[in-house]
Amino acid sequence: MKDNYCIIMAGGIGSRFWPMSTTNMPKQFIDVLGIGETLLQNTFKRFETICPLENIFIVTNESYQDIVKTQLPNVPIANILTEPARRNTAPCIAYATFKIYKLNPNALIVVAPSDHIIVKQDTFRKAIKSCFKKAKSEDCLLTIGIKPTRPDTGYGYIQFKDSPNEIDKRIKKVKTFTEKPDYALAKSFIKSGDFLWNAGIFVWSAKSFLSAYEKHENEDYNLFHDGLDFYNTEEEKNFIKRAYPMTKNISIDYAVMEKASNVYVRSSVIGWSDLGTWGSLYQKMNKDINNNAIVGKQVLTYNSNNCVVHVPDNKLVVLEGLDDYIIVESNNVLLVCKKHNEQFIKQIVSDIKTTKGDKYI
Amino acid sequence: MKDNYCIIMAGGIGSRFWPMSTTNMPKQFIDVLGIGETLLQNTFKRFETICPLENIFIVTNESYQDIVKTQLPNVPIANILTEPARRNTAPCIAYATFKIYKLNPNALIVVAPSDHIIVKQDTFRKAIKSCFKKAKSEDCLLTIGIKPTRPDTGYGYIQFKDSPNEIDKRIKKVKTFTEKPDYALAKSFIKSGDFLWNAGIFVWSAKSFLSAYEKHENEDYNLFHDGLDFYNTEEEKNFIKRAYPMTKNISIDYAVMEKASNVYVRSSVIGWSDLGTWGSLYQKMNKDINNNAIVGKQVLTYNSNNCVVHVPDNKLVVLEGLDDYIIVESNNVLLVCKKHNEQFIKQIVSDIKTTKGDKYI
Repeated sequence: MKDNYCIIMAGGIGSRFWPMSTTNMPKQFIDVLGIGETLLQNTFKRFETICPLENIFIVTNESYQDIVKTQLPNVPIANILTEPARRNTAPCIAYATFKIYKLNPNALIVVAPSDHIIVKQDTFRKAIKSCFKKAKSEDCLLTIGIKPTRPDTGYGYIQFKDSPNEIDKRIKKVKTFTEKPDYALAKSFIKSGDFLWNAGIFVWSAKSFLSAYEKHENEDYNLFHDGLDFYNTEEEKNFIKRAYPMTKNISIDYAVMEKASNVYVRSSVIGWSDLGTWGSLYQKMNKDINNNAIVGKQVLTYNSNNCVVHVPDNKLVVLEGLDDYIIVESNNVLLVCKKHNEQFIKQIVSDIKTTKGDKYI
Repeated sequence: MKDNYCIIMAGGIGSRFWPMSTTNMPKQFIDVLGIGETLLQNTFKRFETICPLENIFIVTNESYQDIVKTQLPNVPIANILTEPARRNTAPCIAYATFKIYKLNPNALIVVAPSDHIIVKQDTFRKAIKSCFKKAKSEDCLLTIGIKPTRPDTGYGYIQFKDSPNEIDKRIKKVKTFTEKPDYALAKSFIKSGDFLWNAGIFVWSAKSFLSAYEKHENEDYNLFHDGLDFYNTEEEKNFIKRAYPMTKNISIDYAVMEKASNVYVRSSVIGWSDLGTWGSLYQKMNKDINNNAIVGKQVLTYNSNNCVVHVPDNKLVVLEGLDDYIIVESNNVLLVCKKHNEQFIKQIVSDIKTTKGDKYI
């Protein structure tokens, strides 16, 4: 287990959940499900049984460093990496991997977002361990694939090939990646049966990742490689401050996964959700007898059904005659929005930015 | 004008407008219409042109004394009368009238609730002046009648007789009072054409009122009469503290108006509303192009129509996909309620009293 490492990516903004999630306090730092812990804390606990505590690294934006410290008081401060600029997943993963590689060249790494939920913890652990095994045994990149339940156009799809020689039959060679297909294509993917959702959870050895990164994203590889002397020293921070803003704003899928030929997917039934929309959040929340999913200790409902409510515990909220609404109160901002119109929230956030600046976002 | 007096009744609770109106800060002390002044301030201004400032008396509950002082800083403190117990309108009017009578036995008095709106100020002034004239010339009790526009079962109805000899043709002898008729009866009242709504605004001389009060509510008359030596002295407060709680909890309509034979009604077109329901409040408020009536400086609406919104100015409120809703935020309490279900609010308030005590009511 001492070679097992984890990188938790906790730098996102989660603007689709405004005003519950704001730039100052994004989704991953909030108990969005009302389970008594934030998504980051939930994610951290998930990996505590897979990696030693000191092998878990959190990558976040500089401005969230204190939140992470507060929410994960047991994590060594050196394990909280901060991004001096907002970038997509590739630079974030590369930075953490270089650092880990220098600590332990034999490191096996699982990379995961901090704001997803995985209900089946045991199955998940089994899946990751199996991937670790594979990653240790050969030079490859693995990703966790989820059997799609609907033609969702918001996800990446992974097409697999039959791979009869695998020890773990659930691990299959990847044929293609398709990011956010249109509805017709998504439907055909579902129908074909050989597509999985990309859960954004990756497993590889530090060696295999760096080798693929060098090959497919050479410029950024060189940027980070130049710091090899500085990682885990006092000079790391200064180096990252200079180098990080020069990296490309690109996802790991585009930068590496879609280009590499040694990619595998492990089809896993783990009760996964990226909690990417109010609808998917609602699905994973506990509901009352009227199918209202409520976070908040003083919420009274009358003639109200299928709502998702997220309000402070000290707030008395009375709802009458509401069906299928999102009701959120946070930081003196109230949003009431028809749940099936949640795509409007993007427009709303943009309007508020225009008229009121960033104060409320 | 020096004999003209006014009694403004400002002791009510307004629980139908919870949580905008609460026991600590009832409707009359709130700018419910978003016009830049509270209903009490609006009512006070209405009478400033009818009576000298020092002749306007406010009767309120002891606990609201400071609110009245703050909202009406020009009113002499001696003119703010406080009720040591919650009673209906009869004791409130009797107390103030005894006090005024002792100041000026020739006083003419207009009595009005503090939480109604009258849009046509000039017509109203004319109506009251005409009633003062009548009240000065003979021993009678007058009330302002409003031509009914719908068979509302929440109002009192006044049936008038033709009274051809009056100087002001709008003043008519009252035949019957009917408090809150059922729907069928209300409909027949409207059809008959000789019924008016009782606006709860009364005009009489102090003498005529006290004479009618002595005759029809003799016990309470005697209670207040016993204090004749104390009104407008240092001993008034102590006397009222003892006597007031012994009075009956009865409205002036039941105690006097329905029993007296010298009652007149002046039919007046004054743009009156008692603002007794969210529906009637909504009618009197300014609306945006989507017929939303909004009090609150930071309210954004999307796909929302026919709503009434009352939120603090510093609160950012975003509403999407709401039609015909009441949205109220006050004192850390939020209510969202279908407007046509507003009768539920009574139930809600009662439930909250049961489960949480008076804290939020």
